[in-house]
Amino acid sequence: MKSRAAVAFGPGKPLEIVEIDVEPPRKGEVLVRITHTGVCHTDAFTLSGDDPEGIFPAVLGHEGGGIVEAVGEGVTSVKPGDHVIPLYTAECGECKFCRSGKTNLCSAVRTTQGKGLMPDGTTRFSYNGEPIYHYMGTSTFSEYTVVAEVSLAVVNEEAPLEKVCLLGCGVTTGIGAVHNTAKVKEGDTVAIFGLGGIGLAAIQGAVQAKASRIIAIDTNPNKFELARSMGATDCVNPKDHDRPIQEVIVEMTDGGVEFSFECIGNVDVMRSALECCHKGWGESIIIGVAGAGQEIRTRPFQLVTGRVWKGSAFGGVKGRSQLPGMVNDYLGGKIDLDPFVTHTMPLEQINEAFELMHEGKSIRTVIHY
Amino acid sequence: MKSRAAVAFGPGKPLEIVEIDVEPPRKGEVLVRITHTGVCHTDAFTLSGDDPEGIFPAVLGHEGGGIVEAVGEGVTSVKPGDHVIPLYTAECGECKFCRSGKTNLCSAVRTTQGKGLMPDGTTRFSYNGEPIYHYMGTSTFSEYTVVAEVSLAVVNEEAPLEKVCLLGCGVTTGIGAVHNTAKVKEGDTVAIFGLGGIGLAAIQGAVQAKASRIIAIDTNPNKFELARSMGATDCVNPKDHDRPIQEVIVEMTDGGVEFSFECIGNVDVMRSALECCHKGWGESIIIGVAGAGQEIRTRPFQLVTGRVWKGSAFGGVKGRSQLPGMVNDYLGGKIDLDPFVTHTMPLEQINEAFELMHEGKSIRTVIHY
Repeated sequence: MKSRAAVAFGPGKPLEIVEIDVEPPRKGEVLVRITHTGVCHTDAFTLSGDDPEGIFPAVLGHEGGGIVEAVGEGVTSVKPGDHVIPLYTAECGECKFCRSGKTNLCSAVRTTQGKGLMPDGTTRFSYNGEPIYHYMGTSTFSEYTVVAEVSLAVVNEEAPLEKVCLLGCGVTTGIGAVHNTAKVKEGDTVAIFGLGGIGLAAIQGAVQAKASRIIAIDTNPNKFELARSMGATDCVNPKDHDRPIQEVIVEMTDGGVEFSFECIGNVDVMRSALECCHKGWGESIIIGVAGAGQEIRTRPFQLVTGRVWKGSAFGGVKGRSQLPGMVNDYLGGKIDLDPFVTHTMPLEQINEAFELMHEGKSIRTVIHY
Repeated sequence: MKSRAAVAFGPGKPLEIVEIDVEPPRKGEVLVRITHTGVCHTDAFTLSGDDPEGIFPAVLGHEGGGIVEAVGEGVTSVKPGDHVIPLYTAECGECKFCRSGKTNLCSAVRTTQGKGLMPDGTTRFSYNGEPIYHYMGTSTFSEYTVVAEVSLAVVNEEAPLEKVCLLGCGVTTGIGAVHNTAKVKEGDTVAIFGLGGIGLAAIQGAVQAKASRIIAIDTNPNKFELARSMGATDCVNPKDHDRPIQEVIVEMTDGGVEFSFECIGNVDVMRSALECCHKGWGESIIIGVAGAGQEIRTRPFQLVTGRVWKGSAFGGVKGRSQLPGMVNDYLGGKIDLDPFVTHTMPLEQINEAFELMHEGKSIRTVIHY
């Protein structure tokens, strides 16, 4: 079948809106009609060419929502008409990781997903007879996409897909890291570095957890108003200080925070985030994705004196098990997605969405088909 | 009063056995007659001059056992005749750290301790009228030493001090890191880097925790026999492999270990220890003390994919609360200290103990007065 799609034909080039060919879903696969998709920094990272695992040409996009159009052989857990959120972190329920009860990092489709292929090692997309690669197992920048059954969360049909699509990545990542990875508790102090979609979602998570103090840090003070409206108690601009920001935060908090979150992908900020944690028990969670080959560093004394360095992927959320509940939390008013959607536009304008993001003018642009 | 002591008069110089003057204990202080002391790598590190916080002249030594000789004003928790183990990690029970329930890093005497002074900012030691500094709040290389009340664990008098003195540092650090910091559980796999006193103690802790596999790593294969006798299931020499040791261990364990322990103080080994942990849940505990200014590093992807980087000081053990129980565990056969004591000698030969340690010929030398 034909599908409108924004294709990344090469690194550093704008996406091109073309009509691609999409093959029917094979065994264990599902054809989804994407109705909405967010545009995330990770898409931009891969498009830039800095992602060493980036493959072109590809259909990017990993923060979408849609409706099941058809299912392949053996698919039993979703059916045509189901509202779904594609998952870049699958949940098969059977692999060593899923069975461990310790992580959301399912290994079921990871190897082929990383190569831009479906689990059988082939691609369902082509353009002018040439194959086009998948991306993160989701490829939500195509109106019709093929996704593994284990990579789909079925969600409440009453939820507006133009909002809950954001639970496919950024918002879930930020909120989940607070609850699942850090396990923030009432009265804890937290520092959140970077006030993009993930950072703002982490603020929301910290509010839900009843953190006593939520310190929001960004070099762009234009983000502070929104951060405050979402629950940040303090906003700090590192540019306003002539000493390391970790020292400022340690002083503000009489020794450091209980939890910090790096929501940028900057290895120097990751160090600051660790070192602003309280001696003896502070934990720092890396959420941002750093550039290829970049390394974090610190003096081991920071850890020997009780700080803990962790990371979080997709907020530690098991997508098939937990996303439906988060969608219901949105419907029940426990998760607020509206402030994240600063722009909406049709697929044809998707390159504008990237520009707005690069300029720091948007939190999330939601694309509709 | 006069006391025989091994004094470090300057960095890089052998200790000198001299008779120093020891002032009586002041308020909140206790005079202890040290009967035995271990010699630890940390003493050697400070003596070498590489420790940026090293102060000279000083009475080193922090792994001792002794008997209370006299108490200063207001001391109520110990009395003359009590058998005690001096603690370089105090436990006041009242500071923010002690009250947190999250850490053993008491702050009560830390500032002055780090400066080689008693809590009132002065020293009790002198030689020819010139002050001599304390060390780690313990200074067990003097027959008579003055220690803060909060830095003393009272232990069972039936326990031989020539053995349980080792619970003042290395053995407690290794065993404690396994139980308190890592919380190793039955069936877990562990990797232990460095087979000195701390590494061997970590093996013992892992055996107590019923770890299913205990991989001992050292570049000195002479240590493997003892490691095996204490419970190591596999011994690996990185020199036998032409690829990074973390890859070897990941392969041996089908994905990595649940817990790893760095018991050396080498920042490159700390990286290997982290990276040999299993994706999704593996935790690496830094125990070794690195040289001044050295930094650990890794790709943040290691943490984002679920590994956790931690550290441990004194095994997370609260000395006054927990050491008495560990001494009883020794008496009850649950902790074996005998294999650690490879040499014993009188104070006069203490420089030999350092040589044996540098040559890798001893695990612990216990000095008797």
